[in-house]
Amino acid sequence: MDIRDEHYNLGEWNQLIESCLSDPDSEPLLNLERDENPVYDAIFVGGGAGGRFGSAYMKAMGGRSLIIDAWPFLGGSCPHQACVPHHLFSEAAEELDRMKWFSDELFFPKFDPSRASILALVKLFLAGRGSAHAFMNWQTKEQLDVEFVLNAHATIVDRNTVAAAGRTFTARNLVLGMGARPVLPDIPGLDLEGVYDFVSLVEELDYEPTRCVIIGGSKVAMEYGSFFQATGCDTTIVSRSQLMRTKALHHVDEDLRQYVVEGMRKRGMTIIDQAVPVSVNGVDGRVSSVTVRLSTGEETTLDTDFVFLGTGERPTVAQAREALGIEVGPTGRVAVNKRMQTSVPGVYAIGDMIDGPMEMFKARKSGVTAARNIMGEDLEFDYTEFPDFFHTTYEVTWVGLTEAEARERFDDVIIIQMPPTVEGLDTPNLPLPCAEGTMLYAFSKPELSGFQKLVVDGASRKVVGAHHVGYGAKDAFQYLDHLIHSPDGLTIDTLGWMNELFLNPEHFIQLSRLRAGNQTLRDL
Amino acid sequence: MDIRDEHYNLGEWNQLIESCLSDPDSEPLLNLERDENPVYDAIFVGGGAGGRFGSAYMKAMGGRSLIIDAWPFLGGSCPHQACVPHHLFSEAAEELDRMKWFSDELFFPKFDPSRASILALVKLFLAGRGSAHAFMNWQTKEQLDVEFVLNAHATIVDRNTVAAAGRTFTARNLVLGMGARPVLPDIPGLDLEGVYDFVSLVEELDYEPTRCVIIGGSKVAMEYGSFFQATGCDTTIVSRSQLMRTKALHHVDEDLRQYVVEGMRKRGMTIIDQAVPVSVNGVDGRVSSVTVRLSTGEETTLDTDFVFLGTGERPTVAQAREALGIEVGPTGRVAVNKRMQTSVPGVYAIGDMIDGPMEMFKARKSGVTAARNIMGEDLEFDYTEFPDFFHTTYEVTWVGLTEAEARERFDDVIIIQMPPTVEGLDTPNLPLPCAEGTMLYAFSKPELSGFQKLVVDGASRKVVGAHHVGYGAKDAFQYLDHLIHSPDGLTIDTLGWMNELFLNPEHFIQLSRLRAGNQTLRDL
Repeated sequence: MDIRDEHYNLGEWNQLIESCLSDPDSEPLLNLERDENPVYDAIFVGGGAGGRFGSAYMKAMGGRSLIIDAWPFLGGSCPHQACVPHHLFSEAAEELDRMKWFSDELFFPKFDPSRASILALVKLFLAGRGSAHAFMNWQTKEQLDVEFVLNAHATIVDRNTVAAAGRTFTARNLVLGMGARPVLPDIPGLDLEGVYDFVSLVEELDYEPTRCVIIGGSKVAMEYGSFFQATGCDTTIVSRSQLMRTKALHHVDEDLRQYVVEGMRKRGMTIIDQAVPVSVNGVDGRVSSVTVRLSTGEETTLDTDFVFLGTGERPTVAQAREALGIEVGPTGRVAVNKRMQTSVPGVYAIGDMIDGPMEMFKARKSGVTAARNIMGEDLEFDYTEFPDFFHTTYEVTWVGLTEAEARERFDDVIIIQMPPTVEGLDTPNLPLPCAEGTMLYAFSKPELSGFQKLVVDGASRKVVGAHHVGYGAKDAFQYLDHLIHSPDGLTIDTLGWMNELFLNPEHFIQLSRLRAGNQTLRDL
Repeated sequence: MDIRDEHYNLGEWNQLIESCLSDPDSEPLLNLERDENPVYDAIFVGGGAGGRFGSAYMKAMGGRSLIIDAWPFLGGSCPHQACVPHHLFSEAAEELDRMKWFSDELFFPKFDPSRASILALVKLFLAGRGSAHAFMNWQTKEQLDVEFVLNAHATIVDRNTVAAAGRTFTARNLVLGMGARPVLPDIPGLDLEGVYDFVSLVEELDYEPTRCVIIGGSKVAMEYGSFFQATGCDTTIVSRSQLMRTKALHHVDEDLRQYVVEGMRKRGMTIIDQAVPVSVNGVDGRVSSVTVRLSTGEETTLDTDFVFLGTGERPTVAQAREALGIEVGPTGRVAVNKRMQTSVPGVYAIGDMIDGPMEMFKARKSGVTAARNIMGEDLEFDYTEFPDFFHTTYEVTWVGLTEAEARERFDDVIIIQMPPTVEGLDTPNLPLPCAEGTMLYAFSKPELSGFQKLVVDGASRKVVGAHHVGYGAKDAFQYLDHLIHSPDGLTIDTLGWMNELFLNPEHFIQLSRLRAGNQTLRDL
């Protein structure tokens, strides 16, 4: 279906996408210029975050890019199954959590657990996700002017040729952004009804779980687990490692970790770490329990009607290996250099197919990096250092070194934190930190109002790490990352001279200012 | 009472402060070193934000500073009557607002307006404010090691001498940080019961108002008005100017203004602008109505049991004028140069006593500026450009130029905004922007999910303004302000290459990236 001359608004796009999704025989959607047999600068195989941003950047630079995607919409799994539902569920978790702590206090009514429903929030998401899809199709076509073939499986023929929608497309380069899928642990019982991962949760959930066992200790495990628990679904996390001590998460400060994990326990979650799941067990085809081997060697069985797998993701590499013979690293991800070039000349890989965090900034910037290199720039993208975050019922955000890492590297490490660690001060009753999102806690349940820590190298006076649990600071950490990792770094003096918007969710500016007068810095 | 050798914890400080506040005959609290007749580098008259930060900075630099304050605690009006209660009330407003929009939807119970109470939240604040006072006293004494005399009126004798607590203190310099008090409009009836300003609201409110008339169009008027309305107290704002079009607020983008004011109206507030209050009228000593002259010249009378004055503040300058003869400018504020020096050598003024926004960053940094100049640095503090914010039921934050200001200054202004302004696109149903705080809105009531705009000079590619209505971006604007006003500025290319934490409350990084490939930038 040639839609080149159609200029759909959001409602029309939404309808078209929905009709494609619901009809397996629906036609591909082609938005192609009219010339015959063009040679593209690149075909982006996959129109997720990386493909969409990479192709748009290439087009903006004057190049010619084509996206091919199996879904009838652009943007990939983020708006369909991943970051967007996660943020919706995490906001619900934060809200439910507050309503429970304040049940029958102030203006909050007595909390009614029967109202909170995982299924209802999944349905809310499903009813609304089409709007984001519609917007991205509209924006990509009308504002970014990128050619695309959607609702069509791409078959990689060779490194210059991709077949889709009954046609063959030619390009000087291929950019592979084919994403990843959840990894299943190797235990029996995963085919039982009632076993979900973050994809099948939104696609298939059809009942209201009452108890949950989560297998895995990833960000997804902690985020979805906190959400399930907040809805009243009694949640147990079974993790091989201690939470937040996996290799997948770097720079996790131990004080922050303790505040976060302790916070999950305070909210009623059971965390069984250093444990191995043995089997998922069922009755009449439905999950009924999970057997777990504890760190003591003992086995225990946890009754449940809902199992959620948070055991990570693995990239979709089979086709690219077969058709192109691209090298795949030991972790199953496509090997690329800092220009996103694979082992096959002219073939790039981006997003969740390559190493590094499976996060949006990496997906989009790797796509842009591929595009800019193809267009002749000599640009490297290093994603070994970056700000990171996830949600429990809090926003947890961090960048740079932990206190322990800094102490290994520098002789004179200064810590500025809130609440301070001072014996006898009675900090659990200290209503600090506080700002938007923690004011009611600060005045009623101060021990819930968050944690923040700034790590400074006393010799250079540079901020080397920042850590935050609370609300409203995540956006700022994007800029803190930039400043900390800029060539000159960010000194406590520069930070302390900024214009704070007080009360600020992280109090780093004013706390730094209270110390910046010191020639020899001290903790605060 | 000499407390030099006492090392109170937070609970002990809290108790001591409370006992001082409740007993008009309580003794001054002296935290002084033991030497006789010291000459301080500076006496800070007033231990509010500016005095506390200035004296702490001076001490950190190796100087000797003394604070004298009439209150038994440090930190001034912010934790006692101003920023802290404002943030608590604004968080309650945000929460109540969400509970109303979602009444009986999802996990939200049917909204019960009888539960929401201004008085209950004032009482919550009063019960808790002592903790912040206690912390600031503890921190100033134990961590910052600043000398102080609290709970004692300061009498300025001459430019080197201040009397307090029956003693006389000598210094090479004075730093005046004596704050400001609300300005009352010149109309009859303000002595009736039921007439409040932000100070008397927390100190004296003793009933639950049912209707409110606000006189004035300041930030305080909009913030407290939004809070009152959210509690179910039917609120009318009577303002001489259009809201957000006062001289006190600069760089207010018209699109942002319309989103904000329209949002207040959507929530049921009545806004009567370009109107003049004529009188507050009463029955039996209590307020019963307000008479207002409309822009048409017609007079109207608004029934009410609660009048709130949001007509600004004026600094406390009488003593300094009388004792020192310092010059006061046409707006009633003390005239200072960029080093915070008044017309009297060795006398500095800071905080709300001087021109500029009555905001925390200015208070604290003006105190630090005075301290650093006194200690021999040659430092100027320019507060003509700064990020700004206030609350309705949203956080409203902005920095730099408005679109209109930029168009006056530059030939080629590029606008990147969300939702975009595109005819026929059906943007009221677009669930963007969205992130923490707007996810539920985005999926249920997308027209409430906020507004954001980035203003870019196309020629230099520099970001010249940023504007945001929503949640979670306020903290980031501190850093955006720093970056935009840094010597090199912030180009769209640098911004677009940052590592976003997606979904991010403002989408500036990724939206910039979608345009940064353009040699000639275009709107998005």
